[in-house]
Amino acid sequence: MEIPDLDAVRRAARHIAPHAHRTPVLTSSAIDAELGARLFFKCENLQKVGAFKFRGACNAVLSLSDAQAAHGVVTHSSGNHAQALALAARIRGIPASIVMPANAPPVKAAAVAGYGGRIIRCRPTQQDRERVAGEVMAATGAALIHPYDDPRVIAGQGTAALELVDQVEQLDLVLVPVGGGGLARGTLITISALSPHTRVIGVEPEGADDARSSLEAGRVLPSVDPRTIADGLLTSLCDLTFDIIRRQIRAIVSASDEATIRAMRLVWQRMKLVVEPSAAVPLGALLQGRVPDLAPGLRVGVILSEGNVELDHLPW
Amino acid sequence: MEIPDLDAVRRAARHIAPHAHRTPVLTSSAIDAELGARLFFKCENLQKVGAFKFRGACNAVLSLSDAQAAHGVVTHSSGNHAQALALAARIRGIPASIVMPANAPPVKAAAVAGYGGRIIRCRPTQQDRERVAGEVMAATGAALIHPYDDPRVIAGQGTAALELVDQVEQLDLVLVPVGGGGLARGTLITISALSPHTRVIGVEPEGADDARSSLEAGRVLPSVDPRTIADGLLTSLCDLTFDIIRRQIRAIVSASDEATIRAMRLVWQRMKLVVEPSAAVPLGALLQGRVPDLAPGLRVGVILSEGNVELDHLPW
Repeated sequence: MEIPDLDAVRRAARHIAPHAHRTPVLTSSAIDAELGARLFFKCENLQKVGAFKFRGACNAVLSLSDAQAAHGVVTHSSGNHAQALALAARIRGIPASIVMPANAPPVKAAAVAGYGGRIIRCRPTQQDRERVAGEVMAATGAALIHPYDDPRVIAGQGTAALELVDQVEQLDLVLVPVGGGGLARGTLITISALSPHTRVIGVEPEGADDARSSLEAGRVLPSVDPRTIADGLLTSLCDLTFDIIRRQIRAIVSASDEATIRAMRLVWQRMKLVVEPSAAVPLGALLQGRVPDLAPGLRVGVILSEGNVELDHLPW
Repeated sequence: MEIPDLDAVRRAARHIAPHAHRTPVLTSSAIDAELGARLFFKCENLQKVGAFKFRGACNAVLSLSDAQAAHGVVTHSSGNHAQALALAARIRGIPASIVMPANAPPVKAAAVAGYGGRIIRCRPTQQDRERVAGEVMAATGAALIHPYDDPRVIAGQGTAALELVDQVEQLDLVLVPVGGGGLARGTLITISALSPHTRVIGVEPEGADDARSSLEAGRVLPSVDPRTIADGLLTSLCDLTFDIIRRQIRAIVSASDEATIRAMRLVWQRMKLVVEPSAAVPLGALLQGRVPDLAPGLRVGVILSEGNVELDHLPW
């Protein structure tokens, strides 16, 4: 399996170009005024399936040989990777089996079904997800496309930053939400190669801060009973994402759910963008003053990672 | 006062370029699949102040002589033009007095105040708006910047379509919401000059369909007691907007509030964009099958005109 490096990210960009959106970068003078910095929001909520996850899933599915692809794909996901894989499989014309925790938001399950994915329920633990996905693989021969522990997925996620550095010059910081670490590792690959003076900062929810504790411990410490409104960031780092994050990331900080909700509302109100809590975590940390190195006038890229939210159950 | 023609639109584009966003055009394969056409949404909800109105207000304020500008500006508006004028005046460093109906959404009044506008309340009738604005003009010498009965404003609104025809080739139709007709006339100026094969269709709410009745009568018939959730489209055509609309528009159709709410929710859910009801009226008419000439595969531009909405009072 290929190493996820800048060449892999560039290949991924070519693979997914016919299918993925080149998402816009938007700004808000009101939010800039509140924070005293210049924020550039990379709008992955406007990506296909409403999330950056489409980049990685699409690259992984298009990277399969015809013989592999014939048996279909399977994954376990709390939601956005599930939708992304279902759509990517439909684009290639192969079946997708999606193992979803029973507590996943109904809007996400409905979207998976809408893209033609076959949903298999599991208990909301990492162990049960992996067990059920393993059963599907054994029964069908499907290829597992893990939501982040997969070099093809990581290379795909790195294409968001590839566009960002092309769209915005001279970024001082880039803030990226951290769940399993696929987006963080992909972003680090791209930024460290193409804009080495730009510092990448990972942001996770206070209630699912396994990246911080893993960095402190020097090894992967999975979350135990993570609790946060940012349901896209419940997953924990794996060895593949932990290693480069430990070596290259400027810092890992966290946001409280309260700050995340305030940030989410701010983005809806001032930027007219629907984002889900997971996407608002970096802005939440900014509002809480927890981002190191932030100085007046700094140019800060923020990956607005996803926008799939239940419109009937908003957190305000 | 200049005639609003293509030259005026092009001058307006140069005037406002340092201050206004060039808004993105976004697409949704899900909505395309539902309608069997290819829709290109011009995202004026992502414009400064969340509405296309900033284009016209900014052009009008920047068109004032220094002597005129010294006395400030005044307008009457149900909301978005008010915010737009307040911000445009702040950019030029002059005072803005905003006559607002007492029933205008609080979020819009708060935004006007946030941009430094002075708010003067009136009764929610066309007559009272104009009376109170006249009093302010008499007392301060402020220049009236009418929300649509003003060639400078119309020229500014035409810049949205100027960008649209540059961003999307070969549009068969362009759908534009119709309230006072400033956006419709501005759009007709641009499209008829630069893309004459493209048909422009105006869409208004069923409960405020003065454009239809005016076209049928052959003269401006103002709305009497208009009722619609699309509170940005309560105003009626004036002579300046009626004349060209009558001669150049392909058709005026309407959407029910129910269809508008369904369209609004669809844009939030599938496109991850916050739009207000007024912006969803054209898509509402599409969902109702009321747009003439719609055929499979047609390329349809839709101006998503604004996105200022009370997040605590959503219509679903």
